[in-house]
Amino acid sequence: MSYFKNISKVQYEGPESDNPLAFKHYNPKEVVGGKTMEEHLRFSVAYWHTFTADGTDPFGAPSMVRPWDEYTGMDLARARVDAAFELFDKLGVPFFCFHDRDIAPEGDTLKETNQNLDEIVSRIQDYMKTSNVKLLWNTANMFKHPRYVHGAATTCNADVFAYAAAQVKKGLEVAKELGAQNYVFWGGREGYQTLLNTDMQLELDNLARFYHMAVEYANEIGFDGQFLIEPKPKEPTKHQYDFDAATAIAFLQKYDLQDHFKLNIEANHATLAGHTFQHELRVARINGMLGSVDANQGDLLLGWDTDEFPTDLYATTLAMYEILKNGGLGSGGLNFDAKPRRESFETDDLLYIHIVGMDSFAKGLKAAHKLIEDRVLEDFIEKRYRSFREGIGLEITSGKADFHTLEAYALQNDSIRNESGRQEMLKGMVNRYIMRVD
Amino acid sequence: MSYFKNISKVQYEGPESDNPLAFKHYNPKEVVGGKTMEEHLRFSVAYWHTFTADGTDPFGAPSMVRPWDEYTGMDLARARVDAAFELFDKLGVPFFCFHDRDIAPEGDTLKETNQNLDEIVSRIQDYMKTSNVKLLWNTANMFKHPRYVHGAATTCNADVFAYAAAQVKKGLEVAKELGAQNYVFWGGREGYQTLLNTDMQLELDNLARFYHMAVEYANEIGFDGQFLIEPKPKEPTKHQYDFDAATAIAFLQKYDLQDHFKLNIEANHATLAGHTFQHELRVARINGMLGSVDANQGDLLLGWDTDEFPTDLYATTLAMYEILKNGGLGSGGLNFDAKPRRESFETDDLLYIHIVGMDSFAKGLKAAHKLIEDRVLEDFIEKRYRSFREGIGLEITSGKADFHTLEAYALQNDSIRNESGRQEMLKGMVNRYIMRVD
Amino acid sequence: MSYFKNISKVQYEGPESDNPLAFKHYNPKEVVGGKTMEEHLRFSVAYWHTFTADGTDPFGAPSMVRPWDEYTGMDLARARVDAAFELFDKLGVPFFCFHDRDIAPEGDTLKETNQNLDEIVSRIQDYMKTSNVKLLWNTANMFKHPRYVHGAATTCNADVFAYAAAQVKKGLEVAKELGAQNYVFWGGREGYQTLLNTDMQLELDNLARFYHMAVEYANEIGFDGQFLIEPKPKEPTKHQYDFDAATAIAFLQKYDLQDHFKLNIEANHATLAGHTFQHELRVARINGMLGSVDANQGDLLLGWDTDEFPTDLYATTLAMYEILKNGGLGSGGLNFDAKPRRESFETDDLLYIHIVGMDSFAKGLKAAHKLIEDRVLEDFIEKRYRSFREGIGLEITSGKADFHTLEAYALQNDSIRNESGRQEMLKGMVNRYIMRVD
Amino acid sequence: MSYFKNISKVQYEGPESDNPLAFKHYNPKEVVGGKTMEEHLRFSVAYWHTFTADGTDPFGAPSMVRPWDEYTGMDLARARVDAAFELFDKLGVPFFCFHDRDIAPEGDTLKETNQNLDEIVSRIQDYMKTSNVKLLWNTANMFKHPRYVHGAATTCNADVFAYAAAQVKKGLEVAKELGAQNYVFWGGREGYQTLLNTDMQLELDNLARFYHMAVEYANEIGFDGQFLIEPKPKEPTKHQYDFDAATAIAFLQKYDLQDHFKLNIEANHATLAGHTFQHELRVARINGMLGSVDANQGDLLLGWDTDEFPTDLYATTLAMYEILKNGGLGSGGLNFDAKPRRESFETDDLLYIHIVGMDSFAKGLKAAHKLIEDRVLEDFIEKRYRSFREGIGLEITSGKADFHTLEAYALQNDSIRNESGRQEMLKGMVNRYIMRVD
Repeated sequence: MSYFKNISKVQYEGPESDNPLAFKHYNPKEVVGGKTMEEHLRFSVAYWHTFTADGTDPFGAPSMVRPWDEYTGMDLARARVDAAFELFDKLGVPFFCFHDRDIAPEGDTLKETNQNLDEIVSRIQDYMKTSNVKLLWNTANMFKHPRYVHGAATTCNADVFAYAAAQVKKGLEVAKELGAQNYVFWGGREGYQTLLNTDMQLELDNLARFYHMAVEYANEIGFDGQFLIEPKPKEPTKHQYDFDAATAIAFLQKYDLQDHFKLNIEANHATLAGHTFQHELRVARINGMLGSVDANQGDLLLGWDTDEFPTDLYATTLAMYEILKNGGLGSGGLNFDAKPRRESFETDDLLYIHIVGMDSFAKGLKAAHKLIEDRVLEDFIEKRYRSFREGIGLEITSGKADFHTLEAYALQNDSIRNESGRQEMLKGMVNRYIMRVD
Repeated sequence: MSYFKNISKVQYEGPESDNPLAFKHYNPKEVVGGKTMEEHLRFSVAYWHTFTADGTDPFGAPSMVRPWDEYTGMDLARARVDAAFELFDKLGVPFFCFHDRDIAPEGDTLKETNQNLDEIVSRIQDYMKTSNVKLLWNTANMFKHPRYVHGAATTCNADVFAYAAAQVKKGLEVAKELGAQNYVFWGGREGYQTLLNTDMQLELDNLARFYHMAVEYANEIGFDGQFLIEPKPKEPTKHQYDFDAATAIAFLQKYDLQDHFKLNIEANHATLAGHTFQHELRVARINGMLGSVDANQGDLLLGWDTDEFPTDLYATTLAMYEILKNGGLGSGGLNFDAKPRRESFETDDLLYIHIVGMDSFAKGLKAAHKLIEDRVLEDFIEKRYRSFREGIGLEITSGKADFHTLEAYALQNDSIRNESGRQEMLKGMVNRYIMRVD
Repeated sequence: MSYFKNISKVQYEGPESDNPLAFKHYNPKEVVGGKTMEEHLRFSVAYWHTFTADGTDPFGAPSMVRPWDEYTGMDLARARVDAAFELFDKLGVPFFCFHDRDIAPEGDTLKETNQNLDEIVSRIQDYMKTSNVKLLWNTANMFKHPRYVHGAATTCNADVFAYAAAQVKKGLEVAKELGAQNYVFWGGREGYQTLLNTDMQLELDNLARFYHMAVEYANEIGFDGQFLIEPKPKEPTKHQYDFDAATAIAFLQKYDLQDHFKLNIEANHATLAGHTFQHELRVARINGMLGSVDANQGDLLLGWDTDEFPTDLYATTLAMYEILKNGGLGSGGLNFDAKPRRESFETDDLLYIHIVGMDSFAKGLKAAHKLIEDRVLEDFIEKRYRSFREGIGLEITSGKADFHTLEAYALQNDSIRNESGRQEMLKGMVNRYIMRVD
Repeated sequence: MSYFKNISKVQYEGPESDNPLAFKHYNPKEVVGGKTMEEHLRFSVAYWHTFTADGTDPFGAPSMVRPWDEYTGMDLARARVDAAFELFDKLGVPFFCFHDRDIAPEGDTLKETNQNLDEIVSRIQDYMKTSNVKLLWNTANMFKHPRYVHGAATTCNADVFAYAAAQVKKGLEVAKELGAQNYVFWGGREGYQTLLNTDMQLELDNLARFYHMAVEYANEIGFDGQFLIEPKPKEPTKHQYDFDAATAIAFLQKYDLQDHFKLNIEANHATLAGHTFQHELRVARINGMLGSVDANQGDLLLGWDTDEFPTDLYATTLAMYEILKNGGLGSGGLNFDAKPRRESFETDDLLYIHIVGMDSFAKGLKAAHKLIEDRVLEDFIEKRYRSFREGIGLEITSGKADFHTLEAYALQNDSIRNESGRQEMLKGMVNRYIMRVD
């Protein structure tokens, strides 16, 4: 059966098209800078937002109307797999991502839960044999069930830690089985609600122990996907330990985990932490930690994770700029960790949202590529920092200077001339590239 | 001459006193947990806010009325020293802090600037001979002068880097001369306004080079005070590299500087970064990096650094809780990096603000000490995490568990019972301790 | 049967008590300024948070463990009523509040829904005959069901408007029947998610039409409780029309509704709008619009409605200051629109949270009363504005001055002397009153 | 002499031009929807940011390098006028705005201050005789001088109120003399820092008295420009009375001033208040209060007024959408209340910033015009609200329905079908219009 029966495979029609069910910028086979757009962009559908989520919000009951809602339990889980692979095909999206509990419901026991999971994994595997769609990453949902109320790897209850370990063990086996290119940790409950009852040091030590065990087990079973940590500063907890890229890096360095992990940077998590999306990508990039991207956007006037589909071309252009400078995302991709608004509750909206998200990143790719090709920012920056490639500047960067030589220099050179940073002119140039590139 | 002639030395009069020019809680020689209050609290007056600042704000001209305003230039600098030591004495504050440019104006050349500084340092040294007041820390103002418009150690202009090096070299010499117990770096311009014109990687590499040179020079001259970095997320820049404690730690680890630096945690900087004051103190503490404290408070509904004097007893109690758990601040102290409101422009306000700040921390010390003495939080936490001290929990924390043993355990123990976190009950207890302890 | 069987009626034991199930400050019959504490404070339990809510959050499933959870449907609704009146009695709380859908579930039709409601209202009425507990206010839940996805009175769908009207009509009848002292409107979906699809003018006109119909119907049936609007700036919508007190007042004035409505001010809504709780109370008070209070608190570092139980004594003291200056709340009260943290999921927490909330406001009442009795702020303010009670100031306030007379005056009086605002000294005084008053 | 001697009159060169000193979108005489671009856009240069400001920030000394900096005192004031009219001409900007103290310094007495002002006004008047440049609005700076430390019209000191009255009296005379099309009030100090020392009611009553006197005096002298209030929520004060559009409207309504004032909406003030720029424009528009616009932008991740030049095409497009729907701004205009970043300190930056600002609004105008011409949003909205133009919906909007008829209807129509809000699809359409329109 078909869940999207009125909808044909979405095609590229170019920027002049006014067909809302066609791509205006995303042309998968178009070559940009030596690679096709689909190689650059590695789009992924988030199973949870697209097939599992129901439109609930803190003040509202489910609103989403989905053709698979006639089913329940494992039947529903099966129907969602069918719908998923139909949508992947209609959108031409090469990847998907899931949490274990998105694809199959918990049973009465952990054993039964794992059996449910096995059945659905098998169904997915069957689809993957005949489809080009791959698993970008999977992860374990260790935040929804009340057993995780005080955390998973950072819980105060050792039984919960053990349960979480069992869940990730299974998750790694599933990753191996389905050929996941990455495995993600998002610690939605790994944090605290109040320091008054929290042993932060023990919790962080335990988190590191947990990650080391995961690395060890992945080695044991030969899962060679990339481990990723996804920073988020807060929500649902008051403070999450992986607050932002820098905090996650500090943790990984301290516990000697930095060689085993990269980061999965999410736009809306960046802004909740007080950073731009580009900032978090840059921090990850220059630390060699940019692994993958959760491609969404937030509302900067709202203080929670709205997980909106990306439409802001400034954000997509500057994100693609960082990704291109990184030489791409390697095994990572652009996962739409984004949901239709609760008010966009019709099945057709599932198409509209992905189309606008894919077009926005395709447009961003082209603008960013052209910006780099024309060396718009590169030339400006090269000139701006030129004093560090000669004379006293070269002595500094090559490690030859010390406070004695620098003081001697400064006493003779204390009439300093700076140059304008030209922020506004550069913003005007970025505008031009966003507008003028199809 | 006297600048505070109508004011006698401020005395402790106890909580029932309604004399606004007396301490209600701060009783310097009173013993709390084996140390006197003045040993615990190590208060410090910030020279810049108290003697140099004029009440300017982004929309307002100077408002402060100061008895030393009749002077200008070096005369003004001399008068401020006289006023400072008079105020230190009247408040009974054991420490002070300054930026180089707070105490002496720049001259036409760096050489002349250094001469101005030498003269005032000498005047300060004379006062210190007959006073008990010590220098908690000094630092270099590398954010105000337009030469630092694009940063100091992270500038795009090598001449500026050299100038900054000369300035810190001199600062370390002053620190050595005056017996400073610490030396602080606050990077007000070490960050960026836009990534469009910024080479973040080079800037951070240069910052590390700068710090290594400072460490080397301190060793050379035998300055053995503690180096401190003061995190702040933003303002004046869009993004400052020392965003918060975790970010600063990530940087220090990456560049192998972690053994040479600790952190100077400021309350208002914590909240601008989206953290509580206690959070930043905790992060620094469990990383062995809690060096000193800038004791102020912000307004959480305002998005800029208000640097208010601390009056919130919740904040002071929980700050002192972390400091006591840290075994004190070592060579650090509680520096009032706080200013009177622009509307509190009279000289008497300089007394009122310090009294309320000192009383608030004294009260916080007593409440925190009593909380710890009664093991209010300790007992709750010990019980809460007890499962990690036995059975499977002990296997986890002692490194004996792996995913196999944990899965085996979880399959047998998947009906998990958690206990309430009791956040509200604990908050009620903290209220009780704040209110009931004199 | 008893749902709180291990818990006796909560008694006042005074501030020295360390019994977590006793009041330390709330002594119902104690007289403060001529009225008993229970007359001043008029506490109310929020039915939804206490008896209906399950601990769900945007990333978490239900966590609350409740003894009435063995029931479902109308049996559950009945059990909750029994539990509610038992808890009211054990806490000695004189009021409660509910939304229609808190007390009884929706049926398959509106008719059946109303029948469900009637049955539970009847059960409540029976309890009220033998209890002293009164209904502070009721309201209609017009935000949870998906029919309200685009708003209720501000929907784009006339059928929804009609349904909402029917629901409020019934609500007013219930209010009349149970002797509600007020009727509340909180417009959780009365706002927009994007202006791109919104006719704001029509929506606001319709909202006014709705309120006028409600006023008319209340008159018709003789319901003489106070109508209240509860401002909230955002969440669940991007923008709610009753953003804050001033916005609600602008709306009521424009549509000639100001004589029929007052405001229900909530602490957490105030801070989400960028205001202090005291600010919103003050704005309502000086406009004669302070009707009732939702007594909770938010976390100013989090951007969503945490609805925490009030524990901050600064907030409760300054709130009670405004309420005392208002001559009390009239028919309004202090409704605990507050929930236990998701981690405080045990039944006992329902006691702890209310005790800490009641004690915090009792303590605030006493501190505020003493502040006013001693005229701490009043004397300062009287002196501060004294120039408006004489000379040119009196001419201004009495309407005799114009720009000519004022210019003539100013040309002769252009050397102006201001006085310090003494903000820090006043904060110190407030600290003293909070700490020293039992 | 020329202050911008290397720069020719800025010309329109079209979107393909890569000349940073040419317009890409702003073509003054191009007709868009029946009016020329210059008639639509009515750009204005802000005298203070462009000619007076020096780049100071809370942590930084002046950075701006200006060719007129060789002068001081009244010579500087004269030189700035010369520079201003040269820049107006080179940019082809038809309007400018100023505060009294931007154009002339204060003297030792109010009389002398007025004489200084008179001289410069006369110089400006001479230029205006031979120039096409007009005064969009002037205003009085009643926030910078320390006499206004506690407010101007809302001060606690009657002498200050009188002084402010004299200053506005003079300002209205200047407005009349120079043919100002509007007169603006921005109450930078009209608010409070703490409620502990504030009589909010008296302050607001006095503010209303002040405005009534201004209206009366304008009538007396025959100044018929539009009075405008410019809302801002905070900064420099903790709370400003004109928090946002709704708050200002509430105030004007309460004090019967609504017929004499409109609003001057500023983008950065909107976002500081938690609103989008478009929201504030919409609120003003549907209340008939949209008078003029301060065209700038803020940084939503920073909590202070950055007053950046507008470059965000989403903001400019949606702003122009509201302005076009308003039938234009009448006597108002688009005033660049925006400053170069402190780091963009060169004279050339004054050109770059205005060019990018003008181009961004020109582009926004074209996109908004086309959106309206194609009825993209209008058709969607008309269809969305169609139920209010027939049947029960028409009864509601025509005032024929009441709770009885609506309940009767709802009981028969309780199976409600809503339609998707299509937010994401609409955002995609807006993207398309922004990108595709030159």
